Amino acid sequence: MDTGTAYGMTMGRPLEELALVGAGTPFGEVLRRYWHPIALSEKVTTRPTSIKVLGEDLVLFRTRKGVAGLLHPRCIHRGASLFYGGVEDEGIRCCYHGWVFTPDGQCIEQPCEPEMGVHRDRMRQPWYPVEELYGMVWAYLGPPDKKPVLPRYDVFENLAEGEIIITNDAGVGGGGPIELDFNWLQHWENVMDPFHVPILHARFSGEQFTPEMALIPEVEFSYTPTGVRSVQMRDLGERGRLRRVTEVMFPNVRVVASPKLSGGTTNMIGWVVPADDTSFRILTLARDTDPDFLRKLRATHDGKPWAELTADEHQSMPGDYEAQKSQGDISLHSEDHMTTTDQGIAMLRRMMAKQVRAVAAGTDPAGIIRDEKLAVVQIEGGNFFESAPESVRA
Amino acid sequence: MDTGTAYGMTMGRPLEELALVGAGTPFGEVLRRYWHPIALSEKVTTRPTSIKVLGEDLVLFRTRKGVAGLLHPRCIHRGASLFYGGVEDEGIRCCYHGWVFTPDGQCIEQPCEPEMGVHRDRMRQPWYPVEELYGMVWAYLGPPDKKPVLPRYDVFENLAEGEIIITNDAGVGGGGPIELDFNWLQHWENVMDPFHVPILHARFSGEQFTPEMALIPEVEFSYTPTGVRSVQMRDLGERGRLRRVTEVMFPNVRVVASPKLSGGTTNMIGWVVPADDTSFRILTLARDTDPDFLRKLRATHDGKPWAELTADEHQSMPGDYEAQKSQGDISLHSEDHMTTTDQGIAMLRRMMAKQVRAVAAGTDPAGIIRDEKLAVVQIEGGNFFESAPESVRA
Amino acid sequence: MDTGTAYGMTMGRPLEELALVGAGTPFGEVLRRYWHPIALSEKVTTRPTSIKVLGEDLVLFRTRKGVAGLLHPRCIHRGASLFYGGVEDEGIRCCYHGWVFTPDGQCIEQPCEPEMGVHRDRMRQPWYPVEELYGMVWAYLGPPDKKPVLPRYDVFENLAEGEIIITNDAGVGGGGPIELDFNWLQHWENVMDPFHVPILHARFSGEQFTPEMALIPEVEFSYTPTGVRSVQMRDLGERGRLRRVTEVMFPNVRVVASPKLSGGTTNMIGWVVPADDTSFRILTLARDTDPDFLRKLRATHDGKPWAELTADEHQSMPGDYEAQKSQGDISLHSEDHMTTTDQGIAMLRRMMAKQVRAVAAGTDPAGIIRDEKLAVVQIEGGNFFESAPESVRA
Repeated sequence: MDTGTAYGMTMGRPLEELALVGAGTPFGEVLRRYWHPIALSEKVTTRPTSIKVLGEDLVLFRTRKGVAGLLHPRCIHRGASLFYGGVEDEGIRCCYHGWVFTPDGQCIEQPCEPEMGVHRDRMRQPWYPVEELYGMVWAYLGPPDKKPVLPRYDVFENLAEGEIIITNDAGVGGGGPIELDFNWLQHWENVMDPFHVPILHARFSGEQFTPEMALIPEVEFSYTPTGVRSVQMRDLGERGRLRRVTEVMFPNVRVVASPKLSGGTTNMIGWVVPADDTSFRILTLARDTDPDFLRKLRATHDGKPWAELTADEHQSMPGDYEAQKSQGDISLHSEDHMTTTDQGIAMLRRMMAKQVRAVAAGTDPAGIIRDEKLAVVQIEGGNFFESAPESVRA
Repeated sequence: MDTGTAYGMTMGRPLEELALVGAGTPFGEVLRRYWHPIALSEKVTTRPTSIKVLGEDLVLFRTRKGVAGLLHPRCIHRGASLFYGGVEDEGIRCCYHGWVFTPDGQCIEQPCEPEMGVHRDRMRQPWYPVEELYGMVWAYLGPPDKKPVLPRYDVFENLAEGEIIITNDAGVGGGGPIELDFNWLQHWENVMDPFHVPILHARFSGEQFTPEMALIPEVEFSYTPTGVRSVQMRDLGERGRLRRVTEVMFPNVRVVASPKLSGGTTNMIGWVVPADDTSFRILTLARDTDPDFLRKLRATHDGKPWAELTADEHQSMPGDYEAQKSQGDISLHSEDHMTTTDQGIAMLRRMMAKQVRAVAAGTDPAGIIRDEKLAVVQIEGGNFFESAPESVRA
Repeated sequence: MDTGTAYGMTMGRPLEELALVGAGTPFGEVLRRYWHPIALSEKVTTRPTSIKVLGEDLVLFRTRKGVAGLLHPRCIHRGASLFYGGVEDEGIRCCYHGWVFTPDGQCIEQPCEPEMGVHRDRMRQPWYPVEELYGMVWAYLGPPDKKPVLPRYDVFENLAEGEIIITNDAGVGGGGPIELDFNWLQHWENVMDPFHVPILHARFSGEQFTPEMALIPEVEFSYTPTGVRSVQMRDLGERGRLRRVTEVMFPNVRVVASPKLSGGTTNMIGWVVPADDTSFRILTLARDTDPDFLRKLRATHDGKPWAELTADEHQSMPGDYEAQKSQGDISLHSEDHMTTTDQGIAMLRRMMAKQVRAVAAGTDPAGIIRDEKLAVVQIEGGNFFESAPESVRA
């Protein structure tokens, strides 16, 4: 008799505690304790844009005086969307009856009401605080009494002569479209999965990176105060050894050095920012002399960019997007059969569950900074060539 | 600490008691006590059309002898749609097994059965009564024992020499597509909201109507036996004063005189006919000498018709459609913060709730006519220029 | 007062017990006791294809050694889809971390694990048994201990000189698209409904078949050990009589001879294979000397193939697809008003309910074969001309 058939199999469940991002969900509340980059500063103008962050629809704009504002889109008066609002010096005016709101939600004008609204100061449009740093607009969607210091990163401080900070919101590292259409955790977990690289990115994708990345590495995983780290050793023969260090930092930071193996501490960091439970964007910062550094980094499949692949090529040369998207809109994590090579993912999930408990208990999750003097985060990730010839190190 | 942020906000609820239109819903049953225009007579032919009214899918056709019929689409025999039926002299024949139904649902032929169906008189296709008046097909979807007289309107009786009645089903006054894709109440309420005009239609939409409409009016709202009325006064300086009267009549009539300010009692009336909870059409009647009067009335944005606006222009010159649609597919009315200028809407909602109670108690809601001699409704709405020079009055 | 209007009507229910196909549903479990053709053998290659059968998503492929495999698509390791897998000599390799599975789900390689996975033999990818016969891949999705013998059919055994077996997966007999987008039972029932032919296929569809099919037949229905049979008599005048025999065999076989009236026992059989509750495909086998026999059989409407009809022509010349699709994505069977001419459908539903009870009781449903010596099924359906001149018989 046949054994192991699919008859009678059950379907499993997502790890909702860790995967969901909405207000009130366990990890959604963890995510709400941190600042998130939500847009490139250059794209925030006097024309309002609709943006979804952590399951919340919002409107983002910049007043004529230059202040960025992030508001709940539904006007508190009668509900028309501020997406259709007109931006003025001090705020945004609803198109329907003309109420004006400042970036922190105060109503400063009700033009059809007597005296421009005698009780207008009692009205408040729901808003979120934003800051601007490194060419990005950062938002804090959490409880006001828990708002931490906005972190800085050592790799973006003290630039060398000719270096600039480069911003990108087009999904660097996602291997697919700009807006990725599945649960963010499938992507973030993948950062702690160095073993997929020699299979997916060498054997399947066409050669995507460098020949060295086709080698199956020896890996050590460890916890850090802010996340999980993997150290991947590859023996390059006469050229020595490559020590590649990759980090995830809570709640959604990816520290992945260039897979094209430029040496030294990484010059770039990415943020996996959920739009909702089944879509996310990746915002990336880099330091380089070339303004096109991030654009050029985009992985290819036998030389073709992802967006130009045919359906047949997507199937025959799958990459990160195809593998992760095919896990499901939200993966059925309970069906996973984890093995020794999945240790990094297991550690990450354990640390995520720990932060859920911390937030539920009212304490700060990992990596929260409350002292402005400690705001600069140290980055350890990178590609380090040991005993390698000079030519490779460059 | 930040105050008034969106963290922890709740989302509110629609006023379902007033907004929903389906059978068995509170206001759905109110709507079912009245006749509704559902199509232009000229479009009802021997080719059946699918039509949705108050959440019910129906098939509308005209027999070869000229009688309009409105039937439940699912053939009572085996369920094929009468949309595929063939119209004959006396009724419509189902394509599947050939049963023939008259406009009042009687089965007059079952061609594959012995003797054309010895029990065919026991079979009845569900149907609704229709009448034709003013070039429109009107339907009554309510309880048979409550069917009222079909109203007539004084403004469409006793036409002057050269005047004709003009019909339109293309969304006059909706400011958007022909089939409007949100809850009908957002549009109907807007009729009792004269204060949005100087903001939305002057400040935002590009100049849509006349310079006078940019003035913020003084408004008085009052109940009438059949609905709510607003009287809007605008001081035109040396040209005198404009008294503009707008009415809503139960359950879904809009009496809005031309915003282009032709003087006197209005020559047009519109009906806001829900297709279902999140879509509706506007059917309009007018009296004029110009057959294109209603087509020409369509609002523009800086001279461009709505359908030709780019996405950027929709955002930068929003009109009624953008404002009302952006309130949501069904607005979350409980989130509204009503002020003094929203008095007309508050009165309308109160009167709607009163009709719900009347119908639940088995009595007639407002404006029901049971005496054929009283069938002609008087219309008060219009633009009235007081102490104005002759030239403006014309 | 009006009577019989649609006011207050209720909507009815599908016969879910018979119509639904998913695992654990009453008739879904009946369907799972039989082999089903799921694809043409020629289309099963080393490029995996996604396929849905009885509500289950599966991946179908052929190893480089030629063995067809049907696997659950979600890799048991971390959930990437085997649709992106690479097919090798012995099985399929997941693109994400390279695990290799044989057609019967055994894991034979875990390339990143020590020693290729010391515990890999404990891992089993859910799979289903397949066989190949008559140019089709057949699958069994039921309980392993109930797997029957794969049936053969007398009409496809012992081919005459020059005859071949022809396969088709393009919806022969469906009258619509290749993938039909409504519940399978509406199509299968229609096979036991000979009375729709003179109405739908003659009076409405334009002449689709032959003039003889426009005659309303005299019909006798009877149960057989494997299903229901109709014998339809048509008086052809001086040309004698046409005796047309149509069969349904459990659980989803259609034995419908050519409506173009070639004489003798039918040379073709079709299977109505549900993809899920609201879509199905028809796979057809025929024996003929012409490889294009099944392609040419496709019904037309006044000479035009279905796919080339305009929307107006679909409405004015409806065929099987329009009639059955318009019954609903799943018909509301409880609304049917069955008459004497619906006897065949009533018998079929009763026999279906009987098989549900048989399976629930742990016994075999109708037509299950357990003895390889009895594997050849006898087919009775066909067009038989009685006392007809020689010229018609050919």
